[in-house]
Amino acid sequence: MSNGERPLDILNESRNKRIMAELKNGRQFIGTLKSFDIHINLVMEDAEEHAEGELKRKIGKVFLRGDTIILISPQ
Amino acid sequence: MSNGERPLDILNESRNKRIMAELKNGRQFIGTLKSFDIHINLVMEDAEEHAEGELKRKIGKVFLRGDTIILISPQ
Amino acid sequence: MSNGERPLDILNESRNKRIMAELKNGRQFIGTLKSFDIHINLVMEDAEEHAEGELKRKIGKVFLRGDTIILISPQ
Amino acid sequence: MSNGERPLDILNESRNKRIMAELKNGRQFIGTLKSFDIHINLVMEDAEEHAEGELKRKIGKVFLRGDTIILISPQ
Amino acid sequence: MSNGERPLDILNESRNKRIMAELKNGRQFIGTLKSFDIHINLVMEDAEEHAEGELKRKIGKVFLRGDTIILISPQ
Amino acid sequence: MSNGERPLDILNESRNKRIMAELKNGRQFIGTLKSFDIHINLVMEDAEEHAEGELKRKIGKVFLRGDTIILISPQ
Amino acid sequence: MSNGERPLDILNESRNKRIMAELKNGRQFIGTLKSFDIHINLVMEDAEEHAEGELKRKIGKVFLRGDTIILISPQ
Repeated sequence: MSNGERPLDILNESRNKRIMAELKNGRQFIGTLKSFDIHINLVMEDAEEHAEGELKRKIGKVFLRGDTIILISPQ
Repeated sequence: MSNGERPLDILNESRNKRIMAELKNGRQFIGTLKSFDIHINLVMEDAEEHAEGELKRKIGKVFLRGDTIILISPQ
Repeated sequence: MSNGERPLDILNESRNKRIMAELKNGRQFIGTLKSFDIHINLVMEDAEEHAEGELKRKIGKVFLRGDTIILISPQ
Repeated sequence: MSNGERPLDILNESRNKRIMAELKNGRQFIGTLKSFDIHINLVMEDAEEHAEGELKRKIGKVFLRGDTIILISPQ
Repeated sequence: MSNGERPLDILNESRNKRIMAELKNGRQFIGTLKSFDIHINLVMEDAEEHAEGELKRKIGKVFLRGDTIILISPQ
Repeated sequence: MSNGERPLDILNESRNKRIMAELKNGRQFIGTLKSFDIHINLVMEDAEEHAEGELKRKIGKVFLRGDTIILISPQ
Repeated sequence: MSNGERPLDILNESRNKRIMAELKNGRQFIGTLKSFDIHINLVMEDAEEHAEGELKRKIGKVFLRGDTIILISPQ
């Protein structure tokens, strides 16, 4: 853990940008990252739920609890 | 985690407003958020359980344990 | 978390009153709340287990471990 | 959490008395409570495993790990 | 928690004696308890895995991770 | 824990190298390790999801939450 | 916990020796233990995955996350 890079940096760089968060139950949420904390709790705006590459529903603003998240990827 | 915004802010802004909380087992509760804590434990008033977009039952006041919650969305 | 209301207040107000606690495995217990702690461990008296709205069995005094509880609702 | 009653009191009152402990996997153990701790780890003596109201096997002395327990009821 | 007896005492008394440990997935291990810690991590020697009362395999020395254990019983 | 070697050393040595991370749900991700922390949260670049030895999709940059990871292997 | 023996001693004695680690999902890994920590995170070298007594694949160096491990046995 020498060179100062930490996993949460990717979230910090993604503020106000589109990210995809995938949950333990397989669901995918794409939205604009507004905030996060060390538990990986996230708040997204203009969020959409996607399933198998297709838009399932629009949610608007959403809080995702960190312990349900498997992966996060900048879009 | 620079600009002062934190995920729990969305809950603070939602006090006394309608929110939807979805649980790990897929159940959805819509109600007026009265209080929350850092574990995401919630208390709602005038709460209703919904399933697939339809009202399933009225519950009134309810305490939801934070570790069962996947997502929270202002309505 | 400004205005002093916390989720556990609903439990404090429910002491010696009837509550319903629902567990992760779907079981429902209705009883008189005698005590609780920050882990949401509960003790009820005159407790009954209900399933789909019907009385399943009378239990008397019961300790419910907090981490198995999904929701609690005053009756 | 005002009046000094705590959930673990029910366990303290049950020392050397018969209790029933039910596990997350549905199994029931009835025995004489000898000791417990804040994790709800229990030791019973003269313990029996019951299934659907019938004696399944006699175990004697047994340690039950707290995080597998759903409920405890004095007999 | 008054009289000084604690659940881990049963493990301390069982050092160098035969115990049975049952895991969350239903598997049973019988062996000579050599050491344990507060997480209920165990080391057994001359351990055997049993299934439905019959010897399944001999393992020799084995470390069992505490959070997979449901119950422990002196043999 | 005497000789100074620790499990996280393998991650430190793997910075900027290709690793494979396998999740609890069986999914495999191969990518260039950019950062990690003590929770085993990882960030990979040029990441690919593989299933049964075949490329399933390219993801680019990805954050994997540590508690979903079973194993990590340098490629 | 009197006589100074602790469960992790078995891991310390197994450094640079062959061990078998079995995961919660039933998978078995055999390899040379290089390092471990108090979370039971392990690093093995010359690791192989086995299923039902047969070699399934060779992995080389592998990090196993402690919370997925059920048991560890020196070979």
